[in-house]
Amino acid sequence: MTDPRPIGVFDSGVGGLTVVRAIMDELPNEAVLYFGDTARCPYGPRSLEEIRTFAVQIAHHLSGQDVKAIVVACNAASSAGLEDVTASVPVPVVGVIEPAVRAAVRATRNGRIGLIGTVATVSSGAYQRTLDRLDPQRSARLVSRACPLFVESVERGDTTSPGLMRAAAEYLAPLSEADVDTLILGCTHYPLLRGAIHHVMGPGVLLISSAEEAADDLYDVLASGDLLREEPGPPVHRFESSGDPERFAELGRRFLGPEFPGARHVALDMAGHP
Amino acid sequence: MTDPRPIGVFDSGVGGLTVVRAIMDELPNEAVLYFGDTARCPYGPRSLEEIRTFAVQIAHHLSGQDVKAIVVACNAASSAGLEDVTASVPVPVVGVIEPAVRAAVRATRNGRIGLIGTVATVSSGAYQRTLDRLDPQRSARLVSRACPLFVESVERGDTTSPGLMRAAAEYLAPLSEADVDTLILGCTHYPLLRGAIHHVMGPGVLLISSAEEAADDLYDVLASGDLLREEPGPPVHRFESSGDPERFAELGRRFLGPEFPGARHVALDMAGHP
Repeated sequence: MTDPRPIGVFDSGVGGLTVVRAIMDELPNEAVLYFGDTARCPYGPRSLEEIRTFAVQIAHHLSGQDVKAIVVACNAASSAGLEDVTASVPVPVVGVIEPAVRAAVRATRNGRIGLIGTVATVSSGAYQRTLDRLDPQRSARLVSRACPLFVESVERGDTTSPGLMRAAAEYLAPLSEADVDTLILGCTHYPLLRGAIHHVMGPGVLLISSAEEAADDLYDVLASGDLLREEPGPPVHRFESSGDPERFAELGRRFLGPEFPGARHVALDMAGHP
Repeated sequence: MTDPRPIGVFDSGVGGLTVVRAIMDELPNEAVLYFGDTARCPYGPRSLEEIRTFAVQIAHHLSGQDVKAIVVACNAASSAGLEDVTASVPVPVVGVIEPAVRAAVRATRNGRIGLIGTVATVSSGAYQRTLDRLDPQRSARLVSRACPLFVESVERGDTTSPGLMRAAAEYLAPLSEADVDTLILGCTHYPLLRGAIHHVMGPGVLLISSAEEAADDLYDVLASGDLLREEPGPPVHRFESSGDPERFAELGRRFLGPEFPGARHVALDMAGHP
């Protein structure tokens, strides 16, 4: 049995490409169809209702191209709309929140888990709700902090400047004070700041990347569902963006490697109508 | 202050490129000079003395090209010769073993840590010695298992075949039986098998990648030692191999991305003389 259909992956922008890379590592024989909603990026300042509408619209767009599974590689969209996406498409859907929370619950020893992300992700409360579900005895406590400057730093290629380090020290201080021993990188951009975050938090704090954990979950879904691609030839990946494909490709190189293949522009209804 | 010198990274072959990628992610402004000793690869069946000689020879070769730090991105060479390498070059040296053991000691809750690696790495006892040093109260116990077929699978691009899954189930069964809750991926090839290993071990076992942990350590060394490169232009990476550069580039694409830039052949004395 072989299932040659691509895996649909989407994000508000380029951050989800860290998830794509983890997928390409773990499943090098699988084709990826990526959609970056760069025309409406960032999702951070938008309402949960609006983000949910966009997520369902993009899932339909991917589903219409015959994907065999969808990865919501966006913390804001996973926070706001994972259930709606799951209900609206006929294929398995993997988000980024539950895999990361599951790993963090497993990893913490003192029961204090930190979460960093964008304002939208942190204020949605989705990580807390997921933790309540996965840890019903309430043995772990979540301490959250929004880090609004981090995305911009990563997109500039800045992971070490004095300005970034000052911002990191300020953002992360309350988490250190709360004595978290495990920290969820709750934004797909943040794996690229792993070194800086590790440097500020110290070696006693374990960092959980939602990108890798989500790729692990996707592997399980494909392997258990008999959905693996077993063709002999290499897979063909495709990248789409709702905004400027040139700008997307420029950032894509930063996330996926120096020779990112380029992207195709796709116009979606901006209000989220199908 | 800016230090434009490259970071020297070496491995017996291509596996160390997973460490290079973690370095490029965390430190995108740093130049990397990579040496893959493909002419003498694999180190697995060689004596520790021989591996130590090779490691010191390569460290001298890199040091002669004015690197500012050296990462021994090879478990066998870190096991056999990290101290000799450190003593033989005038720059900071980072290995892959100590960062991974430190993270595993932090991560385990039941004190049972698994280690998988090549025969050379597992039989060297280096992980056990590092654990004894970092955990002097002996609160954690190490259960090790060599997985000789894994490297070949990764280099073939096979992370999902029934044959690989059977091998993984057989290799990993004793670790599951020993109830490890944390598993060190003690070979630089294994991050590419993360999905398969996670699938077999289940979500209750935390996977520790020595590639990422070593990159975190390098970040600390550069940031604390005022060794960061702060030039405005992008860094130029270079790749050298002692064996066939074409074959190296072919595998390099699998590890570093589809458009690996290619490698230069460098002839070293095969017996390890300087």
